[in-house]
Amino acid sequence: MIDRRHFLKSSLLAGAGTFLGGRAAVSNARTPEPRVTCNGDDDPPVRKGESVMGLCCKPLDVVRIGVIGLRRGGRAVERLSQIEGAEIVAICDLLPERVAASQAVIKKNGRKPAAEYTGEEDWRKICERDDIDLIYNATPWELHVPIALYAMDHGKHAAIEVPAALTVKDCWALVDKSEETRLHCMMLENCCYDFFELATLNMARQGVFGEVIHAEGAYFHQLRAEKFLKNYKQWRLNFSIYHTGNPYPTHGLGPVAQIMGINQGDRMEYLSSVSTDQYGLHKWAKENLENDERITASERYKLGDVNTTIIRTAKGKTIMIQHDTTSPRPYSRIHLVQGTEGMAVKYPEEKIAVGAKHSFLGKEEQKSILDKYGHPLSRYLGDKARKVGGHGGMDYIMDWRLIYCLRNGFPLDQTVYDAAAWSSLVELSERSVLNRSASVPVPDFTRGAWRDAQPWPVIDMDQVLHG
Amino acid sequence: MIDRRHFLKSSLLAGAGTFLGGRAAVSNARTPEPRVTCNGDDDPPVRKGESVMGLCCKPLDVVRIGVIGLRRGGRAVERLSQIEGAEIVAICDLLPERVAASQAVIKKNGRKPAAEYTGEEDWRKICERDDIDLIYNATPWELHVPIALYAMDHGKHAAIEVPAALTVKDCWALVDKSEETRLHCMMLENCCYDFFELATLNMARQGVFGEVIHAEGAYFHQLRAEKFLKNYKQWRLNFSIYHTGNPYPTHGLGPVAQIMGINQGDRMEYLSSVSTDQYGLHKWAKENLENDERITASERYKLGDVNTTIIRTAKGKTIMIQHDTTSPRPYSRIHLVQGTEGMAVKYPEEKIAVGAKHSFLGKEEQKSILDKYGHPLSRYLGDKARKVGGHGGMDYIMDWRLIYCLRNGFPLDQTVYDAAAWSSLVELSERSVLNRSASVPVPDFTRGAWRDAQPWPVIDMDQVLHG
Repeated sequence: MIDRRHFLKSSLLAGAGTFLGGRAAVSNARTPEPRVTCNGDDDPPVRKGESVMGLCCKPLDVVRIGVIGLRRGGRAVERLSQIEGAEIVAICDLLPERVAASQAVIKKNGRKPAAEYTGEEDWRKICERDDIDLIYNATPWELHVPIALYAMDHGKHAAIEVPAALTVKDCWALVDKSEETRLHCMMLENCCYDFFELATLNMARQGVFGEVIHAEGAYFHQLRAEKFLKNYKQWRLNFSIYHTGNPYPTHGLGPVAQIMGINQGDRMEYLSSVSTDQYGLHKWAKENLENDERITASERYKLGDVNTTIIRTAKGKTIMIQHDTTSPRPYSRIHLVQGTEGMAVKYPEEKIAVGAKHSFLGKEEQKSILDKYGHPLSRYLGDKARKVGGHGGMDYIMDWRLIYCLRNGFPLDQTVYDAAAWSSLVELSERSVLNRSASVPVPDFTRGAWRDAQPWPVIDMDQVLHG
Repeated sequence: MIDRRHFLKSSLLAGAGTFLGGRAAVSNARTPEPRVTCNGDDDPPVRKGESVMGLCCKPLDVVRIGVIGLRRGGRAVERLSQIEGAEIVAICDLLPERVAASQAVIKKNGRKPAAEYTGEEDWRKICERDDIDLIYNATPWELHVPIALYAMDHGKHAAIEVPAALTVKDCWALVDKSEETRLHCMMLENCCYDFFELATLNMARQGVFGEVIHAEGAYFHQLRAEKFLKNYKQWRLNFSIYHTGNPYPTHGLGPVAQIMGINQGDRMEYLSSVSTDQYGLHKWAKENLENDERITASERYKLGDVNTTIIRTAKGKTIMIQHDTTSPRPYSRIHLVQGTEGMAVKYPEEKIAVGAKHSFLGKEEQKSILDKYGHPLSRYLGDKARKVGGHGGMDYIMDWRLIYCLRNGFPLDQTVYDAAAWSSLVELSERSVLNRSASVPVPDFTRGAWRDAQPWPVIDMDQVLHG
């Protein structure tokens, strides 16, 4: 048995050089012991507020932002500093060179300089400022929840990188804090804004697939070398030494959950999950690394190479989600949508089958249907998004839309219930895997509000912007 | 609650016009009541013989065959009557025109006329003949087991269409009868012999994928109209009025199970399964049928549109199997093989990713690797197989190989343990679906012999045939 304190000490506390907020990370760190509870619903905690389903907050003329964690957040600074009505007030990272680089980007884009922070606990100072509306949290996984909670406690909306939380308990904490403070807490699930995903969302809403009954998503991304990168402080590696299941489910789940109206007319009711043993990482480490410590870490790595999770919804529909960041295979998020009248799949190649023939459309037909059902957001923002970039443009669309909704006092596209439900798979899939694929209930983070909530509509940008 | 006797009476006994063996079907019909047992291993029955793993029987100079059920078996007659050393001694179907058509095929191929049978119980007479070595059983699902058991009881090898059995109890019955009689009982899983499947088997055996850790298979085949065809006597429809889960798992499972050495060095340990509700069939029936009785049948249809089953093996590998015969989507069996060093997938297009690039090979490279690893069986038989046909040639390769092994006294490629384990998913998946995706153990039909059994080798045809 590996000593938990020793793990935390070596992986988190010792991470002062490149890692934010050791203290909070420790107090909120996910327990490394395997969970054995698998039957019966987790009782929800005592509610601290009221539902924030469809929450509208006071419109903000300018959204003043603190960006914390610039390894990934540096790209967010690039995007946000090109969006009208977004003002970056503070930037924070343990590495001064990252802060300097982001400051240069802000200057290049003709925006006012941001306040600079490099201390390990400086995210608290940023949350405590009175000139910030939104904390954009792009820190390592275990800091997502402590910073978001602290932000909302200090009156800020919280945007969190994926996954929003690593435990069911922390998912509830986000929900309860958002309900208590009446502030937005949105997970930054960028894949919901990719072009094919938005087009299939639009097609689903227009009934092109009939009733959508099954969907699939995944995160297949070979990251063996990245797991050992020093500038990650090996937090991803260390998490996976202690945990199995699917630690990164939301890129695959988010887009199909929106299409299926999860938390909005339907909800995930239970799941079962299976993982292979770890075969690939240790093999690769032995063949490719020379550092004994890393090879030992790879040997202790618990995360199975391939995880497959099956989910059933209250309305009798199913979702299959997979994860593999070890095996050498082409990148894929699958993104398969199956309806009673047609289907679409994104990877390895975008293919659509609708109509009476039950065969995939030819290239011309497919182009024509994608043109017809291109999502208004993609149409309106596509050219700029592709130019600004961020995973091909989807990150820009996400950020633009977040700022747009906050400025107009609109509900956000992804609610705190989505952040919680989608992220809860991290723990729930592990529970099932550790219990021979036992069926595990998915908590209803909406506490019943899913029944009356309406699925996210397709925004008509022309109407919004030009009356 | 639908009365069981009434169902059996209307669907099976009344089927005398086009349906074989009402009596046996009734006595062996699968109980329509949902099963609720889901925990703990099913105790295996008392063993009646010894293991038939690797069974070699007396070589047969000529394999004398009785083909029962000519709706599908008619094509088998075409193939078998073109294979050296195969002699069709008897043919049987309730429809005299089918018997006549098969007799004409036999004549066309220059073979001796076969004895003709058209009685409902005539399969018994064929099994009782003393001039037959092999019963080729292509009858509707519920007759697979009774005829196979009767055949072995009368000293005949049994070859059975898929699935070999519909219940775990019947899977054990096949295993025990084969062990008791020391006769072969092979399921005719033709998809194991398709060209890409055989090539990936060869690649796996040569280590091209590294260690194979995960695989996927499916049966996506839109059969809505076929479910209502009169000449099926609606047995497929009727089965699915009472059952959910995956009633037809072996086309997807068989090829990947052989690649992964299931029952030969590894075994399936447990599974979980999820189904959507039935959305598509009733919708389609209402829109496309005019017969009230059929529309009512579609409404009562219990089989969910999409089933997804996840399986874990003793060696910590996983298999994902899906089924959908209702939704309009292009035909697919997926056939995905994921190893620690590469992967291949057959549908929607054959793609292979091996080597350092983690991307799919280009067309030229892929052709070259498929040429290099083309399976000896495909090389030797491919041209003839494509000419004779049968799902593109795989059926011919399967039949040829069966006859070849029987003539040489070799073990068959698919053992009775494979027939049982692969078919057991019919019941096990349903049990899991009916119990909120509960984890269900897969019986070890080999009773431990899987540990020492060797995976099916790649046959070197040149060596076999030319020394």
